Amino acid sequence: MTNKGLLLVLSGPSGAGKGTVVKRLLQTDPRIRLSVSATTRAPRPGEADGREYRFLSRDRFLEMVRSGEMLEHAEYCGNCYGTPLRPILDWTSKGFDVVLEIEVQGGAQVKAKRPDAVGIFILPPSLAELERRLRSRGTEPDGTVRKRLAAARGEMERARGYDYLVVNDDVDSAVGRIRGIIAAEKNSSRRNAGLIERILSQT
Amino acid sequence: MTNKGLLLVLSGPSGAGKGTVVKRLLQTDPRIRLSVSATTRAPRPGEADGREYRFLSRDRFLEMVRSGEMLEHAEYCGNCYGTPLRPILDWTSKGFDVVLEIEVQGGAQVKAKRPDAVGIFILPPSLAELERRLRSRGTEPDGTVRKRLAAARGEMERARGYDYLVVNDDVDSAVGRIRGIIAAEKNSSRRNAGLIERILSQT
Repeated sequence: MTNKGLLLVLSGPSGAGKGTVVKRLLQTDPRIRLSVSATTRAPRPGEADGREYRFLSRDRFLEMVRSGEMLEHAEYCGNCYGTPLRPILDWTSKGFDVVLEIEVQGGAQVKAKRPDAVGIFILPPSLAELERRLRSRGTEPDGTVRKRLAAARGEMERARGYDYLVVNDDVDSAVGRIRGIIAAEKNSSRRNAGLIERILSQT
Repeated sequence: MTNKGLLLVLSGPSGAGKGTVVKRLLQTDPRIRLSVSATTRAPRPGEADGREYRFLSRDRFLEMVRSGEMLEHAEYCGNCYGTPLRPILDWTSKGFDVVLEIEVQGGAQVKAKRPDAVGIFILPPSLAELERRLRSRGTEPDGTVRKRLAAARGEMERARGYDYLVVNDDVDSAVGRIRGIIAAEKNSSRRNAGLIERILSQT
């Protein structure tokens, strides 16, 4: 089994419960780390640099993009968001698995640059359940829920290219399946090239 | 997650602990079945038809080969051995995973006919450990152990084409990894074609 950490790309529509799944995954396995995105937007009250985001100046952000230090990046509402490559390389080389929680366009950029990344798309059991979850957050007006449902549909329609589809019917089951995926990938032949030769050449 | 059972092809050299791993796997998961091979050799004392083997006449065996009812087959010491296809189709369609314990040539035949089969190759942690395990069986003369070691080398050299390599350093760990592989495969995108469309088309 390879002792190199995996890069896990986790995506899924709002309401699929991605955040809860990631949180539980990090709690159950100390060998998993969460990638912290970089952004040019200003910190909000209570946000700490390096925890919610790495807060960067626009100049520094663009410099990192130019020098290949961003694994993926996008502009949204006038602010830049991106995934710094260095921490991912550091953690995975030390054997930690790194989770990247990201929308599908970013996920596609990551897969294009790092074909060895493991793409996992989290799905709601049904659209009715997705709507129920979005409404149960309570405070949002009906129009916002409808917009979010449409956005969720869009995300799901663009989920081609992910290696695994995990239905989040129950958080513990979903986390168990993701842990199964991690174990399987680490034992895959393509991540263990040379293993048999190493065993055979031992004296 | 697909509710169709998987066909698991388990191979590995003598001394890798395949048998123990398979036994523990069957004990820990009631949704796994073991495929029973067919043979034309005579039953030995204590062997029951349908348990150790399905005992068939040579005519019946060859008829099954001709009609495509054998997933793979081979002749060994003048007797035919093979894997009947029908029980595998029955079990997997009912959602049971079926384990086929088989040597590498048979495994390659299965993979060629059923590319959706999951190939798992069980490895010893080292050749020294393999030798220790073969010797600890006790009763065998040195020449036999050397022949078995050479055969094990041969099996390992022909292990290309397996999807997963599982080192059996510890039976429970190895079984845990195989269960991870089963979970991962059932959540793979290629085994769940149409899942997203089904969720999106629900009303």
